Amino acid sequence: MSIHAYGAIAADQSLEPMRITRREPGAHDVQIDIAFCGVCHSDIHTVRAEWAGTQYPCVPGHEIVGRVSAVGAQVTHHKVGDLVGVGCMVDSCQHCAECNDGLENYCDHLVATYNSPTTDAPGHTLGGYSQQVVVHERYVLRVRHPETQLAAVAPLLCAGITTYSPLRHWKVGPGHKVGVVGIGGLGHMGIKLARAMGAHVVAFTTSESKRDAAKALGAHEVVVSRNADEMAAHTKRLDFILNTVAAPHDLDAFLVLLKRDGTMTLVGAPASPHPSPQVFNLILKRRSLAGSVIGGIPETQEMLDFCAEHGIVSDIEMIRADQINEAYERMLKGDVKYRFVIDSASLGNNQPARA
Amino acid sequence: MSIHAYGAIAADQSLEPMRITRREPGAHDVQIDIAFCGVCHSDIHTVRAEWAGTQYPCVPGHEIVGRVSAVGAQVTHHKVGDLVGVGCMVDSCQHCAECNDGLENYCDHLVATYNSPTTDAPGHTLGGYSQQVVVHERYVLRVRHPETQLAAVAPLLCAGITTYSPLRHWKVGPGHKVGVVGIGGLGHMGIKLARAMGAHVVAFTTSESKRDAAKALGAHEVVVSRNADEMAAHTKRLDFILNTVAAPHDLDAFLVLLKRDGTMTLVGAPASPHPSPQVFNLILKRRSLAGSVIGGIPETQEMLDFCAEHGIVSDIEMIRADQINEAYERMLKGDVKYRFVIDSASLGNNQPARA
Repeated sequence: MSIHAYGAIAADQSLEPMRITRREPGAHDVQIDIAFCGVCHSDIHTVRAEWAGTQYPCVPGHEIVGRVSAVGAQVTHHKVGDLVGVGCMVDSCQHCAECNDGLENYCDHLVATYNSPTTDAPGHTLGGYSQQVVVHERYVLRVRHPETQLAAVAPLLCAGITTYSPLRHWKVGPGHKVGVVGIGGLGHMGIKLARAMGAHVVAFTTSESKRDAAKALGAHEVVVSRNADEMAAHTKRLDFILNTVAAPHDLDAFLVLLKRDGTMTLVGAPASPHPSPQVFNLILKRRSLAGSVIGGIPETQEMLDFCAEHGIVSDIEMIRADQINEAYERMLKGDVKYRFVIDSASLGNNQPARA
Repeated sequence: MSIHAYGAIAADQSLEPMRITRREPGAHDVQIDIAFCGVCHSDIHTVRAEWAGTQYPCVPGHEIVGRVSAVGAQVTHHKVGDLVGVGCMVDSCQHCAECNDGLENYCDHLVATYNSPTTDAPGHTLGGYSQQVVVHERYVLRVRHPETQLAAVAPLLCAGITTYSPLRHWKVGPGHKVGVVGIGGLGHMGIKLARAMGAHVVAFTTSESKRDAAKALGAHEVVVSRNADEMAAHTKRLDFILNTVAAPHDLDAFLVLLKRDGTMTLVGAPASPHPSPQVFNLILKRRSLAGSVIGGIPETQEMLDFCAEHGIVSDIEMIRADQINEAYERMLKGDVKYRFVIDSASLGNNQPARA
């Protein structure tokens, strides 16, 4: 079937309306009519080929929510009409140690929701800036939030799980003092989730102007990281830091805030490296600098259920598909609170430039 | 009392014989007649003021073994005649969370065996390149090895515990594949200890010439890290890496050898930073880069007992005190297998240049 989508035909081109095809659902496939798709920084990196290996046409989008419109004969976990979500991956090898552990996100043969090799046309996966998607049932998540919140659920599929997974893995909970660095798409979810997990949350931002917003999101304390006195007050006080900032920055300024045995986990990947951290800041308190990427399918379902139970969604600004290029420019200036979400209904109104 | 020692009076001076004093043993003090003292790279860094803050005269040495020659009235754990050791610290605050957890090595008020503030003359601590030392009983370890092995036990007090502590903390044992990077004073102990803990040990060296030596130390496999094919064969295969190399080097080359959730722990501190590691190498397998410094007193005793039980000592080359400057030059060229140890008996024969 041919459907409307929005994508780029080259790294130096704006996104534009286009038509793409989806495979007919196979025995284990779920066909989803997309209602909303969140807009992630990774979309920009990929569309603009800032990371290696972008295939064109590139249709980004991996924060997908919608309703099941067809299922294959063998599908048991989803049925037509269900509210569902799809995150950053649509397949993996399904038999390695990572897949067997429910950590498909660390599978060496993970198939990303866009820009990964596939036998479907055009030979690489196309993402959620489109009307429909067909995905193996294993990678389809059940959404238990009320339908009225569906648009604000979309960012949970990437921003939510990317922050939930490390918070859970490093066992954040009551009695812990947790730092969240950066208050953007990822960071605003990190604050909400760490708070809901029972931790004492200290938000770090470079902007005095975000102080009130961070408190409103649930931070118990807010530190403007340009203020040396405010930073010093937290030296050796934090059990864990979730660092969501993708721009290269001074990691040492945050490492020294960790207690003995504390970990700072990076979930943003800068295009060029951070300044090298001082080894002394690691060894003198047995600290760790770690990384984490999205999360596995079982924990993504756990995260969605946790958020439904705690009434957690993303703070979003809804856009039409034809506003996506402008949205990218605003994201690069940090001018969004905190996630753009495309209303997929606006895709059908496109006059495709290319059929 | 005035005793013979070897030390430096300035950063640009060779070590020379000198006389120093030790306090009379207090109620909780143990006076030790030093038999041997190992020579650690930290000694060179400190003597030459390559790290900030060296006080002169500087008498280094923190791999001390000897026999108790006097004890204070309140001392209960040690008695005259016992074989004992003293490592990198001689005091700490004794009441913080770290001290209470037996991790005095992470106490903010740790008093290092040399170059730390003290009320003793001359106002900073003086180390084990000397005939005697007086230490609070808490920081004195019992040596259970046969006395014939005493010289080779000395390096366990720093090189041994520095490698033992992270291997234990990151739970190395049977079924684990562990990398040990660098085959020097620390690395050769790391190989022996990881092997004795039951792990499969892969040693990494830059020198083809160390291949046989690493096997003789207990490594199951040896990789010459300049050989890309040998390195690639271990990609994503290691559970843990103990990195003992203090010179700045490419951490990414080793991080990629870790499995998902693997940790590389640095125990060497370079004078200038390593090249910054790639964030992708951390996040794509949830890897950690950590640091660790020496170990706490209870685990140092545990290490000594473990080594006594398993017949583990350091490989050493014995020197006289007046060979120390030459020994430093040889260490800087990597020309020692694997630790110099000063025979303290040679100190008494000095004709002190300064009294």
